[in-house]
Amino acid sequence: MEQINVIKVGGGVVEDVASLQRLLDTFSAMPGKKVLVHGGGRSATKMAAQLGIESTMIGGRRVTDAKMLNVVTMVYGGLVNKNVVACLQARGVNALGLTGADVNLIRSHKRPLKKVEMSDGTSQMVDFGFVGDVEKADGNILSKLLAQDIVPVVAPLTHDGNGNLLNTNADTIASEVACSLTPYFNVTLTYCFEKPGVLRDGDNDASVIPHITEADFKNLTAQGIVSGGMIPKLENAFQAIGRGVKRVVITHADHPDGEGGTTIE
Amino acid sequence: MEQINVIKVGGGVVEDVASLQRLLDTFSAMPGKKVLVHGGGRSATKMAAQLGIESTMIGGRRVTDAKMLNVVTMVYGGLVNKNVVACLQARGVNALGLTGADVNLIRSHKRPLKKVEMSDGTSQMVDFGFVGDVEKADGNILSKLLAQDIVPVVAPLTHDGNGNLLNTNADTIASEVACSLTPYFNVTLTYCFEKPGVLRDGDNDASVIPHITEADFKNLTAQGIVSGGMIPKLENAFQAIGRGVKRVVITHADHPDGEGGTTIE
Repeated sequence: MEQINVIKVGGGVVEDVASLQRLLDTFSAMPGKKVLVHGGGRSATKMAAQLGIESTMIGGRRVTDAKMLNVVTMVYGGLVNKNVVACLQARGVNALGLTGADVNLIRSHKRPLKKVEMSDGTSQMVDFGFVGDVEKADGNILSKLLAQDIVPVVAPLTHDGNGNLLNTNADTIASEVACSLTPYFNVTLTYCFEKPGVLRDGDNDASVIPHITEADFKNLTAQGIVSGGMIPKLENAFQAIGRGVKRVVITHADHPDGEGGTTIE
Repeated sequence: MEQINVIKVGGGVVEDVASLQRLLDTFSAMPGKKVLVHGGGRSATKMAAQLGIESTMIGGRRVTDAKMLNVVTMVYGGLVNKNVVACLQARGVNALGLTGADVNLIRSHKRPLKKVEMSDGTSQMVDFGFVGDVEKADGNILSKLLAQDIVPVVAPLTHDGNGNLLNTNADTIASEVACSLTPYFNVTLTYCFEKPGVLRDGDNDASVIPHITEADFKNLTAQGIVSGGMIPKLENAFQAIGRGVKRVVITHADHPDGEGGTTIE
């Protein structure tokens, strides 16, 4: 089976001009089939602030009212996505920007009220607003586009099939896209961020854990070595492996080819 | 040769919820291959104002500095385009939102300083900023997407191949897209706006001129019956006919199928 790389880059990377250009250089040079999935949360927060709209985060996730949905549609679907596409085209990569609404790529439904554990130990029922829980990503249409040497660049927006766009976590988008491609490709899913991988010691970039099994993950979490935003990232990773993705890599944005990061197989 | 309809809807239509929904209903019901090209200038002006950015129009065209380029990228490429795509998907149309950067669809170059006739009769050299003059639209890639029953929805943004997006007139985009498809299809280009067609009397919607030849156009302009924004629209129309488009229709947004409008053949 042909190899494919699904690379996810977080907001912190796409919003720093120098990091983004380095990432796009390396991504452009990677041989073979590839998909780029991007975030953009910090730009959305900044744009919302400029428009006098307050950003509310609960449990690391953005509460998305109608006004905030317009902001993320503009920032993720427009500003970030189209600039990444133009920069890839300048590097000879035939990029195509997509949200989940385009070619019906990713269908979702509005998240129901959800019980969230708060930092003070209590829990709360939260209405996240226009946030989508993914139902299905269409790997078939994606594989047809890939067969035309198109490189999809996917923004973290989905749709409900009733005309509504929904804000959707970019890690989840990357994972769903990767899983949807497993019938057609041997898939590697790479999460790029500001750290070189999953660290044994958060203050020491040299302490990357090279491989993590599901048993390791439980131990590392119990010991508090893995915490915060890394927990859902690793949960996503193990789910993706369970659904047929061959390899998940968590690595620095300067190494989207996976070099030096943490591998989950 | 197979028929195709390239439909352009102006900002005034896409920004009025009821008009847009009616247009999308009719567009969705149209049989055969089709492409939708949209504007969004009024939304861009409104968003710019909310961000404290002043809109400057010279000779009916927007001056686009770096900040305004970000606004039009967000509004045209994100807000308007993705909402139209989601609304079409809800109607069973497999829409795909595109800017000129996506799949390298429309290449342009930054407009050089341009002599513009001012309303007071003087002329002025104007730097329009990040505005693109179209070099080439790729009808080949578009025809491949159309062959997969994808319905392209094109935003008025192009790119220069060096990583820069450029703001581009939506009428021009529609015309260039239509011309690029002439080797593959029998193309009808329809400009939809708030009036039922080219009017003999601007105050009387019943005075639609059903057909206009190039000779008529010269006479109508000389007589002042055709004026303002209708002049470049008709110039675009005749250029498109000269480049192989079979028929151009100027009509009300409630009749994207061309019924009752002005036809140029």
